[in-house]
Amino acid sequence: MLGRVNHIAIAVPDLVSATTTYRDTLGARVSQAQRLPEHGVTVVFVELANTKVELLEPLGEDSPIAAFLAKNPSGGMHHICYEVDDILGARDRLKASGARVLGDGEPKTGAHGKPVLFLHPKDFNGTLVELEQV
Amino acid sequence: MLGRVNHIAIAVPDLVSATTTYRDTLGARVSQAQRLPEHGVTVVFVELANTKVELLEPLGEDSPIAAFLAKNPSGGMHHICYEVDDILGARDRLKASGARVLGDGEPKTGAHGKPVLFLHPKDFNGTLVELEQV
Repeated sequence: MLGRVNHIAIAVPDLVSATTTYRDTLGARVSQAQRLPEHGVTVVFVELANTKVELLEPLGEDSPIAAFLAKNPSGGMHHICYEVDDILGARDRLKASGARVLGDGEPKTGAHGKPVLFLHPKDFNGTLVELEQV
Repeated sequence: MLGRVNHIAIAVPDLVSATTTYRDTLGARVSQAQRLPEHGVTVVFVELANTKVELLEPLGEDSPIAAFLAKNPSGGMHHICYEVDDILGARDRLKASGARVLGDGEPKTGAHGKPVLFLHPKDFNGTLVELEQV
């Protein structure tokens, strides 16, 4: 069911500083920042040879990463996103196995304009899992 | 400087249960468990199309992931490993930029038999970074 790792997301308190770290200290290619108000984040992509790292900074008052940064003020690894071919089939299979899908269980349009779902971290060894249909 | 994402490591309290989750619930290909006493972990590889996830369970009394699991009993994302061509060059560049290399700063032989170094998570937005020379 799982395809490629689409991205690994890292929440950061300061995107300008994090961009400098990844670009200048680690020598990676880093995209321009994109504000995604409908997702409550500003995002930068660290473009690696086989996948990407997304650096996420909270945007607005109801950012979905605000609570995580309150607990982890320096930032930290926030979630991992796997690609799937059929997100509704994946969802139904996961629900049948007892895994919890976050929200109302209906795919939303993610930061890349594709359908996404998030799975409860308690069902996946403390790791927030995103599925993205590609 | 950064090449491919070699792996994303997830610490888990119970490798048998985590293997079942990734193989049966998420439908991924999962390797046999390997005991690595010199690294203080038993490891399973979740083999994805473009990279891999390493599931790590503590092995022995001085496991390097014991403290992490004491803080995160359900498990969680532990580190991200990037490939580099020249680990000594990377280390020197990182040290010159002020980043802290863990341990004595000399590469060790990692779980894949290749030279590795770990970088201080406080210098990388709360993310433990491993570099592996490939």
